[in-house]
Amino acid sequence: VRSLQTAKGRDRHRQFLGEGVRLLEESLRHNCMPSKIYYAESQLNDRGRSLLGRFRKDGVMVEAISHRTLEQIAETEHSQGIIGVFAMPATDLGSVSREQVRTVIYFDNISDPGNVGTLLRSALAFGLNLAVFSPHSVEPFNGKLVRSSAGAIFGLPIATASIAELHDYYGNGNMQILAADQHGEELPGVLRRLRRNKLLVIAIGSEGAGLSDAVQELLDVGIRIGHSRRVESLNAAVAGSIIMQELYQRRIGK
Amino acid sequence: VRSLQTAKGRDRHRQFLGEGVRLLEESLRHNCMPSKIYYAESQLNDRGRSLLGRFRKDGVMVEAISHRTLEQIAETEHSQGIIGVFAMPATDLGSVSREQVRTVIYFDNISDPGNVGTLLRSALAFGLNLAVFSPHSVEPFNGKLVRSSAGAIFGLPIATASIAELHDYYGNGNMQILAADQHGEELPGVLRRLRRNKLLVIAIGSEGAGLSDAVQELLDVGIRIGHSRRVESLNAAVAGSIIMQELYQRRIGK
Repeated sequence: VRSLQTAKGRDRHRQFLGEGVRLLEESLRHNCMPSKIYYAESQLNDRGRSLLGRFRKDGVMVEAISHRTLEQIAETEHSQGIIGVFAMPATDLGSVSREQVRTVIYFDNISDPGNVGTLLRSALAFGLNLAVFSPHSVEPFNGKLVRSSAGAIFGLPIATASIAELHDYYGNGNMQILAADQHGEELPGVLRRLRRNKLLVIAIGSEGAGLSDAVQELLDVGIRIGHSRRVESLNAAVAGSIIMQELYQRRIGK
Repeated sequence: VRSLQTAKGRDRHRQFLGEGVRLLEESLRHNCMPSKIYYAESQLNDRGRSLLGRFRKDGVMVEAISHRTLEQIAETEHSQGIIGVFAMPATDLGSVSREQVRTVIYFDNISDPGNVGTLLRSALAFGLNLAVFSPHSVEPFNGKLVRSSAGAIFGLPIATASIAELHDYYGNGNMQILAADQHGEELPGVLRRLRRNKLLVIAIGSEGAGLSDAVQELLDVGIRIGHSRRVESLNAAVAGSIIMQELYQRRIGK
């Protein structure tokens, strides 16, 4: 189980970890059942005990371990005495429905797991249907990413693909790519330019390097989020979330 | 210098650390000069060397140290060979102008330094004038907070005060407190209820515990950010940033 703390271990076993009461409650909400639960009786609060009961009732294998052993499996001090092991879902584009997906978040070589997790949470909150990770982005089942997603990782379909692969999969002319762009047009006016019959892809670049050349070339709409010149830029998770919220508020991509 | 990695050390010496090229560039932008710069020549890139030159020109004391020594002072692997020591500004309310402040962000017992840093960055971006930390919030000059602020810590005045002290300082009836609240009214309609002649305080509660009783009692306007029921809530930094961006976009609090 400890090997699942590394990307290599997760890849070999095709499993990942989710720790803490709130995160595991979210896995239940999304009907994403762990293959196994480890818990330390002495560390559980009432909410944790009730959660354990629900997993038991649903036929999930649960195993009591010592507080010390649990601390070795846990990545943070906030495990609250309970950790789940989950099977990694398939992340190839081929397993994604072409018809049901209307709005996609695309991570363009983002390495910060906290930002990506926060963006997954916003993406699920604002009705997006799919998250696509570029090959050089952080691995989708990284522990910090899973925790920052606050459980959204269990609710949002995940795929790994380059922007070219995504473009090919949906077919030329069927996709509209937008991104935060300091030289773009201002919200909310720019939203009028979106075509409701196309797949909307919201691309998020890394804070250091910006958008990749491959995404820049395909970019349809650059969105400038107006702000004071006293800061150079917004946090990537904040900028992406503001764009998703504006689209949600205007029922674009529904 | 290493003692500045802990809250105790920072409090004793009334100094804090800022590491990395981008962060130190922001300190220059805000004319917030370090009392001292440490650098490891072998680790500097061109941008770092040019930054060092600017500090030198402005009369900042700079000292070359070994890569190894620098690694001991740095808190991350991303120091890029340069670290600044800054004097802590006064954070008592008394040093804050009563007249020039129109919009305030209030951290209501938030302990997550990453969220607070991100919110400081958004607050500066969206034209707020002051950040107030409740006594049980994370310490304002925490290393992770400083890094997450992307330099906003150098640009935004900071105070430490309880909501009651803030209320007393500005006088009864002169302040309007708003906060994200799942049972509140929806954006953007609720913004019509804001009074332009009052000090606006945007209170941010912790994700676990929500708003404190003290803030709840004084709350004037609860703002619900509409989102899908597939997530329980938004990230605190995202929710606060969305509210600040909506106010900025509508020129409220200007």
